[in-house]
This record gives sequence, structure tokens and C-alpha cells, in this order.
Amino acid sequence: MSGAEIDRLIQLLAKLPGLGPRSARRAVLYMLKRRDAFMLPLGEAIGEVASAILPCRICGNLDTTDPCPICADPTRDGGLVCVIEDVADLWAIERTSSYSGKYHVLGGILSALDGVRPEDLNIPRLVDRAAGGDVREVILAMNATVEGQSTAHYLTDRLAVTGVKVSRLAHGVPIGGELDYLDEGTLAAALKARRPF
Amino acid sequence: MSGAEIDRLIQLLAKLPGLGPRSARRAVLYMLKRRDAFMLPLGEAIGEVASAILPCRICGNLDTTDPCPICADPTRDGGLVCVIEDVADLWAIERTSSYSGKYHVLGGILSALDGVRPEDLNIPRLVDRAAGGDVREVILAMNATVEGQSTAHYLTDRLAVTGVKVSRLAHGVPIGGELDYLDEGTLAAALKARRPF
Repeated sequence: MSGAEIDRLIQLLAKLPGLGPRSARRAVLYMLKRRDAFMLPLGEAIGEVASAILPCRICGNLDTTDPCPICADPTRDGGLVCVIEDVADLWAIERTSSYSGKYHVLGGILSALDGVRPEDLNIPRLVDRAAGGDVREVILAMNATVEGQSTAHYLTDRLAVTGVKVSRLAHGVPIGGELDYLDEGTLAAALKARRPF
Repeated sequence: MSGAEIDRLIQLLAKLPGLGPRSARRAVLYMLKRRDAFMLPLGEAIGEVASAILPCRICGNLDTTDPCPICADPTRDGGLVCVIEDVADLWAIERTSSYSGKYHVLGGILSALDGVRPEDLNIPRLVDRAAGGDVREVILAMNATVEGQSTAHYLTDRLAVTGVKVSRLAHGVPIGGELDYLDEGTLAAALKARRPF
């Protein structure tokens, strides 16, 4: 059988989302055959990012600087704050290249079932930011799930005292989507929110 | 967008077999959220294995010692050598826990299409081992593909001068397999190689 270090590496990699024991073995074999060109640089890249990563004290984003590159970017609109559940959502919005405001990462979603309460999330700092005077609009970009929407309602209540404008993402037909395949809820929302042509 | 180091790490991980840009991003996020418990140990494990890995001078296996643990194990039968295409096949046979001989890793398969010639593979060392006097049987465990089988034929010819017994894996119905779903070639081979009950 393979050496103990190799086994341990396979077991570690198998914990990654989307990988299991089988794909972890394939990944390790791929690495072993590309020691200098791939495996050593990968180990270094993981070590470098791991030793540099830290949460942004302003928005909660995870990056190698604090404040994060987005909070530190003076060309981005500090009056606009987009609230998301997770860093993955921040990355998803950044990939659209259509948003030039700042972010606020909640680090989760309110959930009675999982015992996630408001004080477990990055909510007090959001209220402080909104009350600070520089923010004119908060965009609630939670997932369109029951828990996402109840978190959005909770945040709307909490932000009411600050007087900033609170908006949410539009619901509707996805670009490229076919009506016939769309669920009734989305179609009803798209009809209700119809726009002049 | 995420910092340059994080982007580079995502690009590196996306090269692993079975991962793409999307699953690489998920993997990196998983790591970022588990810096101490997962990311730092993973970076170290990759670095340790990468700096220790080397091919076994006897069989071509990749491991952290040379000779590899299998070649160095005195309890394994050195008279039996199982020839496989790749280290992945060695791992697969080891997982069966039903083989106690040694191995010989070819490091590929003869292929006119891909320009892989006998001298590109670990074949001369196999002939040397077989001719050395300690080996009494060579098991050819190539994949049951056209190229695997033509490599097996080539090796049979090359090994003829050494006088050692050359065998191959049995073909037949996979354990748990249903005849109705089996291809004709396998079924014909299983019929031809029928055994007394």
C-alpha cells in the first residue's frame, strides 16, 4: 500500500467538497506525477494563502489583507453596501463585473432549526456601518430561500432606525430561461414585477 | 474580486482531475473557513509528500522511500511480479488485500497513436528482473483494452527468453454483475473459460 504520508494526504483531500476517496486518490496521483510543476507550487500556494488569510474588519470578507481589497478600493462606491450570506456570494457577484459598491458578509443565515441567532452573524457591524452616515443604500442579496428571505426581513427591521434605503435583488425569469420550465413562484413574481417594454 | 494569491490557488486546484473552476472555488472557500484545522495541515502534507516522493528504483512505484515499502517488505513474495500500467493500478490491487507478491509499474502503455514506444516504458528493468533468477512468475495486469492487450502480447514476447512463467488476469463476469447487462465479449470470454462447479 502507499506510504503513510500519501494516505494521510488522500484522507485530507477527500474532505474537500465535491471530492471523495476515489477522486482524492486520482488528485494525489496527478500531483505525484507532477512534483515540480504542480505539487510543490500547490503546497506553497496553500501555505501562503493559509498564513495570510484573515477576515476583513469592515465587511467580513476573507482575503490576504485587512481591510480587504474591496473595502480598500477608493474607486468603489462606499455609499452602496450589498449584504450577502457568504464569501462565495461575494465572489459570484464580483464575477458579474456589474457591481461597484462595497459588501457586507453575514457569515451565515438566521436559522431557528440550526440555532443560528442574530448575534451569531455579522449583523451588529452592519447596523453600525449603515448608521455611520456614509451609506445611502443597503442591498439585501440573500438567497431566495425561506431562511434567506426571513433573514432579509429581520435585517430590514433592524436597519429601519438608520434611515438608509433598503433594497433587494429582483426576482424574475433567468436570462436564457424558458417559461415552460420555470417554477410557478418565479413566474408569478416575474408577472407581478413586469416592466414597461 | 478575491486577492491575487487566492485566485492563483483556485487556478491551480482547478487543474486537478475531477475539479473545474467552480469546484475549485468551493474547495478554496472550504479551506479559507478552516484555516488552522484543515488548510495549514493540507499545505504541509502536500509539501512533505512532494519533497519526499521519488520513484522506486526496483519497481517504478511512487512513494516516500526508495526502495518503496512493497519492494522493501521481506514478507512479500519476491518470486511473483505483477506488471501494471500505472501506480493507480497498484493501489487498486493493494486495496483488494489479496495479493502478496511484488509489482512492476510500466509507467504507461504502448501506443502507436500517442507515440509511446517500448523504450519509453519501464520495460528493460522488467526483463532484467525476470532474468535475474529470483522471479518465477510474471502476472500481466494491463487494462483489458486494445492497447493494454497489445502491450501484454509485446511483454510476453520479450519475457520468453527469460523462461519465467507469464500469466494474465482472468476475464469473466464481474462479481455482482448481471448477465443481461454484460457486453458480449465478456460473456463469451466467461463461457470459454468456464470452470468445474
